[in-house]
Amino acid sequence: MTTVTVWNEYRQEREQEEVAEVYPDGIHVAVADALDGYGFDTRTATLDEPEHGLTEEVLDGTDVLLWWGHEAHDEVTDEVVDRVQERVLEGMGFVVLHSAHFSKPFRRLMGTSGSLEWRETGERERVWTIEPGHPIAAGVDGPIELPRSEMYGEPFDVPRPEATVFTSWFEGGEVFRSGCCWTRGNGRVFYFRPGHETYPIYHDGTIQRVLANACEWVAGTADAPAPEARNVEPREPLED
Amino acid sequence: MTTVTVWNEYRQEREQEEVAEVYPDGIHVAVADALDGYGFDTRTATLDEPEHGLTEEVLDGTDVLLWWGHEAHDEVTDEVVDRVQERVLEGMGFVVLHSAHFSKPFRRLMGTSGSLEWRETGERERVWTIEPGHPIAAGVDGPIELPRSEMYGEPFDVPRPEATVFTSWFEGGEVFRSGCCWTRGNGRVFYFRPGHETYPIYHDGTIQRVLANACEWVAGTADAPAPEARNVEPREPLED
Amino acid sequence: MTTVTVWNEYRQEREQEEVAEVYPDGIHVAVADALDGYGFDTRTATLDEPEHGLTEEVLDGTDVLLWWGHEAHDEVTDEVVDRVQERVLEGMGFVVLHSAHFSKPFRRLMGTSGSLEWRETGERERVWTIEPGHPIAAGVDGPIELPRSEMYGEPFDVPRPEATVFTSWFEGGEVFRSGCCWTRGNGRVFYFRPGHETYPIYHDGTIQRVLANACEWVAGTADAPAPEARNVEPREPLED
Amino acid sequence: MTTVTVWNEYRQEREQEEVAEVYPDGIHVAVADALDGYGFDTRTATLDEPEHGLTEEVLDGTDVLLWWGHEAHDEVTDEVVDRVQERVLEGMGFVVLHSAHFSKPFRRLMGTSGSLEWRETGERERVWTIEPGHPIAAGVDGPIELPRSEMYGEPFDVPRPEATVFTSWFEGGEVFRSGCCWTRGNGRVFYFRPGHETYPIYHDGTIQRVLANACEWVAGTADAPAPEARNVEPREPLED
Repeated sequence: MTTVTVWNEYRQEREQEEVAEVYPDGIHVAVADALDGYGFDTRTATLDEPEHGLTEEVLDGTDVLLWWGHEAHDEVTDEVVDRVQERVLEGMGFVVLHSAHFSKPFRRLMGTSGSLEWRETGERERVWTIEPGHPIAAGVDGPIELPRSEMYGEPFDVPRPEATVFTSWFEGGEVFRSGCCWTRGNGRVFYFRPGHETYPIYHDGTIQRVLANACEWVAGTADAPAPEARNVEPREPLED
Repeated sequence: MTTVTVWNEYRQEREQEEVAEVYPDGIHVAVADALDGYGFDTRTATLDEPEHGLTEEVLDGTDVLLWWGHEAHDEVTDEVVDRVQERVLEGMGFVVLHSAHFSKPFRRLMGTSGSLEWRETGERERVWTIEPGHPIAAGVDGPIELPRSEMYGEPFDVPRPEATVFTSWFEGGEVFRSGCCWTRGNGRVFYFRPGHETYPIYHDGTIQRVLANACEWVAGTADAPAPEARNVEPREPLED
Repeated sequence: MTTVTVWNEYRQEREQEEVAEVYPDGIHVAVADALDGYGFDTRTATLDEPEHGLTEEVLDGTDVLLWWGHEAHDEVTDEVVDRVQERVLEGMGFVVLHSAHFSKPFRRLMGTSGSLEWRETGERERVWTIEPGHPIAAGVDGPIELPRSEMYGEPFDVPRPEATVFTSWFEGGEVFRSGCCWTRGNGRVFYFRPGHETYPIYHDGTIQRVLANACEWVAGTADAPAPEARNVEPREPLED
Repeated sequence: MTTVTVWNEYRQEREQEEVAEVYPDGIHVAVADALDGYGFDTRTATLDEPEHGLTEEVLDGTDVLLWWGHEAHDEVTDEVVDRVQERVLEGMGFVVLHSAHFSKPFRRLMGTSGSLEWRETGERERVWTIEPGHPIAAGVDGPIELPRSEMYGEPFDVPRPEATVFTSWFEGGEVFRSGCCWTRGNGRVFYFRPGHETYPIYHDGTIQRVLANACEWVAGTADAPAPEARNVEPREPLED
């Protein structure tokens, strides 16, 4: 059974009424509940727990880590960022949600700034499938219509994705690569744009389906030793 | 005219006689001299200079940075690593030499460990061209034969290269992706495996030709504003 | 000097008044004139010439081939398609325009159907730059606004592009990867969506700039022998 | 249950004694038996059957097609090649074995010549894993040692692989990308170099494991409609 840890900053839900109305128990609980329904073994972790809830033990027992962050990226310690990076290189899957494009572990794994253009006016977003055969698009029938969304626009400063599963159209005139895949070491990373702290996007059934697909896809790697420097003997005889 | 800065740790040449014999003025000077001959406007910088010789002013005036490091990766300050990363995202080319697979700026830009297998026995290496039409392979006629080389073996912990221009065969039985290309922000990165501090590989004419090609290729991007987060107005009217 | 051959079906301009009004001498002449202005050595070829104007001699002297086709894809002979494919593998650049997503040489080089969704209502298109540092985007300052355009929508059945330089937004609600790069053999292929036979898109200065950039980029490969099967002798002694 | 069809030219086994000794029932049966043991629902088809054994009905019921061809590539009809291509674009997986680098359906899907260098001296091959986390490498512990093999050398004229899972080292001095992945339409393609008609490579347990992994991986796409051109209505109101 695939174990999934949903990480959340979990500040705005406790401090802002309009956020608490949409996600009374936090975005992490809403996402974890949805993934539970897809048969994953889910748990949660948040910024204000000791070690942000991401101890070595927790990460060692995690197959897939989802990450929501928004206003407190800088409060995540480098030690925990190191740990997340190391676990991804070992093979843990990593699903990066919406505003976590600016999170430390995502920028660490990408090597880029994660910057983009944005606008928060509650405009219409339509998420088009670019690769209908990709496992993350399974069951997504036609474009996903999000009546109220925050706009993210290109250029999105990330390395060229290995696959771009989704691209969004925005009412105000922009486009954005909304579902992007990368491999890092033995692990897989998926960035998924849709989501917000006051628009109820994580309550949408199709969005939940995509998150479940993403968890399955990032978990689908082979068990292999972590990358490691090694001095080795020759396998063939060497000339003197 | 393309300005090239060759960066070198420049420790082993001053401390180890067998290194000084091959590169009496340092690897940086040997490489810079070779690139001079190809018409680049070259300069050098080294670890023990103030700010490692890589002040904001130097980097702002650099189109292509080459990087040699071996034993003192950790002495490079994070401030300089930040600066190099930022300049690459803005569009500076970055050519990473041999043992700099473990350098801080390379690992920062890749998001991976850079680890690999290795062996130092002076064995034969044959560098095969995988993409003969790639500009970095221009003028390379047949495999490059290096009679004495340090072995690097797979798996090499880097993101999937956008192009793998060269792959090496080693006498002792291994293979390695020896010439790898990536884009980061507006900038290009090329990793080139051949090279060593006591084998005279940077004195080889074909190797110098590849380095010159690489400088030209990484410099060949469009001038564009650095990636930057921006809050923007809609370009289309929004429904209420 | 880079030699460019602009190929055109050249039927609609001779048969439909509304096409002739926009491109009185044919789309090929409009595009060739624009590229002339950028310093290319241009010529044209059309479907109804012997061998479609693409004799061995013409193609051997061509560094970059641009291709416009729309209603007569099937009239292109397989012999000429073979010849174009072979020249691309040898290193000729290939720029595929708008409705030529369904042309035989493009489908041959891609291995896919080239299918897409479309709508012809003269709606607004906005072409966003995804990779501002890519040479094909040089001088493109902000999104390209096309007031009247034919819509092309995803999924676009092509192999994953090696680089997606542009993505279009359409007024009617769709997105499309409008500028896509691939390598085939020693050659480079660029597909560029904007263009039409009655909207004056190829008269637009920025569109012309992109076409010139594209010609330069696809021509920028190394001279190398064409891929060819060869039985070879061992380079190392073999055990009995 | 995943249905796998193993296609074989099946000529050399019937005509050459030294081939029949290694594969008395044909390479297709040896491969199908191995895949049976991994739980696939296997069948076979051969060149000399009507429609080469690949009727519409057979292909419609096939999730994964494996292809062995060697000396009679040209006898495969274009009609069957069209059918295989179409099914791959619809989502059928395609595993291409050894000398089938020159087969018509592989060249059709790649758009390149499939050429390479070769030598048949029964030399040693060592297949290195480049991506240990890739599902196709699952259970492959260390390099695969093949004591007697036909050499294939670079450059291999295929599009840049989306993933290069394996790369081979040869005793005689060459390297080769031995396990390559591509996506075409909704389908996945995997080329696997090891194999031969007289060396007993398909009887090797690790090789069989890789083939089983490959079948699982190419079958792992989402069910989605085949790519198809469609004229569509706007989803947003258009200005007059």
